[in-house]
Amino acid sequence: MKPGLLNLPGERDLIAQIRARVPANPSWLTVGIGDDAAVVHPERGALEILTTDALIEEIHFDRRFSSPADIGWKALAVNLSDVAAMGGTPRLALLSLGLPASMESHEIDSLLDGFLALAAEARVALAGGNITRSPGPLIVDVTVTGFARPRHVLTRSGARAGDDLYVTGEIGAASAGLRWLQRRSDARRDEAAFAACAARHRRPEPRVRIGALLGRNRAASACMDLSDGLADGVRQIAEASGVGARLDAAAIPIPEAARTVFALEGTDPVISAVAGGDDYELLFAVPRRWRGRLATVLRQGRGVPVTRIGELTREPGVWLARDGATEPLPGGFVHF
Amino acid sequence: MKPGLLNLPGERDLIAQIRARVPANPSWLTVGIGDDAAVVHPERGALEILTTDALIEEIHFDRRFSSPADIGWKALAVNLSDVAAMGGTPRLALLSLGLPASMESHEIDSLLDGFLALAAEARVALAGGNITRSPGPLIVDVTVTGFARPRHVLTRSGARAGDDLYVTGEIGAASAGLRWLQRRSDARRDEAAFAACAARHRRPEPRVRIGALLGRNRAASACMDLSDGLADGVRQIAEASGVGARLDAAAIPIPEAARTVFALEGTDPVISAVAGGDDYELLFAVPRRWRGRLATVLRQGRGVPVTRIGELTREPGVWLARDGATEPLPGGFVHF
Repeated sequence: MKPGLLNLPGERDLIAQIRARVPANPSWLTVGIGDDAAVVHPERGALEILTTDALIEEIHFDRRFSSPADIGWKALAVNLSDVAAMGGTPRLALLSLGLPASMESHEIDSLLDGFLALAAEARVALAGGNITRSPGPLIVDVTVTGFARPRHVLTRSGARAGDDLYVTGEIGAASAGLRWLQRRSDARRDEAAFAACAARHRRPEPRVRIGALLGRNRAASACMDLSDGLADGVRQIAEASGVGARLDAAAIPIPEAARTVFALEGTDPVISAVAGGDDYELLFAVPRRWRGRLATVLRQGRGVPVTRIGELTREPGVWLARDGATEPLPGGFVHF
Repeated sequence: MKPGLLNLPGERDLIAQIRARVPANPSWLTVGIGDDAAVVHPERGALEILTTDALIEEIHFDRRFSSPADIGWKALAVNLSDVAAMGGTPRLALLSLGLPASMESHEIDSLLDGFLALAAEARVALAGGNITRSPGPLIVDVTVTGFARPRHVLTRSGARAGDDLYVTGEIGAASAGLRWLQRRSDARRDEAAFAACAARHRRPEPRVRIGALLGRNRAASACMDLSDGLADGVRQIAEASGVGARLDAAAIPIPEAARTVFALEGTDPVISAVAGGDDYELLFAVPRRWRGRLATVLRQGRGVPVTRIGELTREPGVWLARDGATEPLPGGFVHF
């Protein structure tokens, strides 16, 4: 952690404040916050996994709906999700902050609360970063590195026709939650189920443990995370692996509250759920002969639900089967 | 490299376009652009160095003065400079882009031109990143990793009283160059020397080779880069090492054109030069008995100038000696 290219008033104090809150450096972290760069001992015998993702105000979050602590949590979560999607175990994070002048010290503190709470949960060390001013939006850009044994890395491209497709958790909750937040005037929605969807938007739970277990047990032929929605994910894995896919609409785990939000908006709940991003669930392919390995992962997975939603096919294209018919799966989404 | 949390129109095309322009993956890069994260073989027997730094429009650059290619170059340069300051050799970069809607495709291309030109020069692989929309400013956040043998890492805290202080290159050129750009109406300034200062602001040359040589030859007891100016750098090294410092004003390598710009503004050229940031030169301390090692570095350094500017002292505080008197060195700066 070091100041940006511009001295902010109080910026060094802010770095000192962060440094004071970060736990003691783990033994592999030789130089942490406070120098030009962090210095670490690589994990012996492992490959390194690196990812970076930014959350930018107005694009990825709305400060009316997400507290600073939510934003700090989520900025780390979306990166942990990427490491999990590669079958890796996360290890360290770098935090690059662009702070609008209007942001107050206690808000920065609470952004750090959220970030550090998830870092502690995922056993990730905050090893450095950068703080600078922003002319407008709050910008939280995070880099996470992790590791995996060479044969345990999961890419998008290893799947074959006939592999089953699975997802962790639930689909559509985060995008339904955001819509619920945007229209909260409707009193009917003040219910726990809707609030749970909103929580999925604010504080996604990256599938850190399941991702690492899928890698370690070599239980998946391909894996990715669903930052851009299930429809996008299925298309990415199918294209990268050179196959097609067919999803069973009835099998997709869409929470009832999300279905209700989408239905109230007059949109097709299944289509809305698979098109909605921000779920940070894992989508992965499992060859049928590896089902035993998947059973091992589930036993060790501490109850995270995993659902079979379809399969990869020799026929190209991505299809949704429901009510005895198949239709092309819509792709992409625009969030705000 | 993967899309951000929001699908941009044409974003996947943009990633494909970047991917097509990046040279083939080096052998140690197992998974490059296009998956959830990059996967690399760590450098054997070395420590890893990690840094992240962002350039944000209006804060770090003005698009009237810096072309997209300049911005791409500089976003990588400031990170390479941090790795050099640790005595490391850079290896890979991740690029996180926040693109305003107004930015055109050819401008993004030319930002990449600048980034990739410096990446090629420094032998750094673009291994991944993230592209998203920005609601306003252009945001270019870069992470660079590099490596160094365990005993070759240079921190800020290893210096002792009596060590000499050196800088690479010239001081104050970048900040003078920016001022020149901001006041170009003055026709007198259309001269090569001023343009050279402006070039230092637009395209700083990170001291990649000298930094790695200082580490490899164990020629410096402390080192940092001058992103926030010489005065700040000297204070940081002195504080981290628990010593004081005295600089010799006459020895500080301030280019004549920079002195002229500062004098035209009615400011003290030495004070302006040492307070001005954005130089990305290296500041380092050398114990006198290590001068032979420094000579080796200079022989291998391909002509990069290195100047002794003062020394570290037992007495605390940071002082500037000139015209037979000493004065406290001013600290910090505000750039725009």
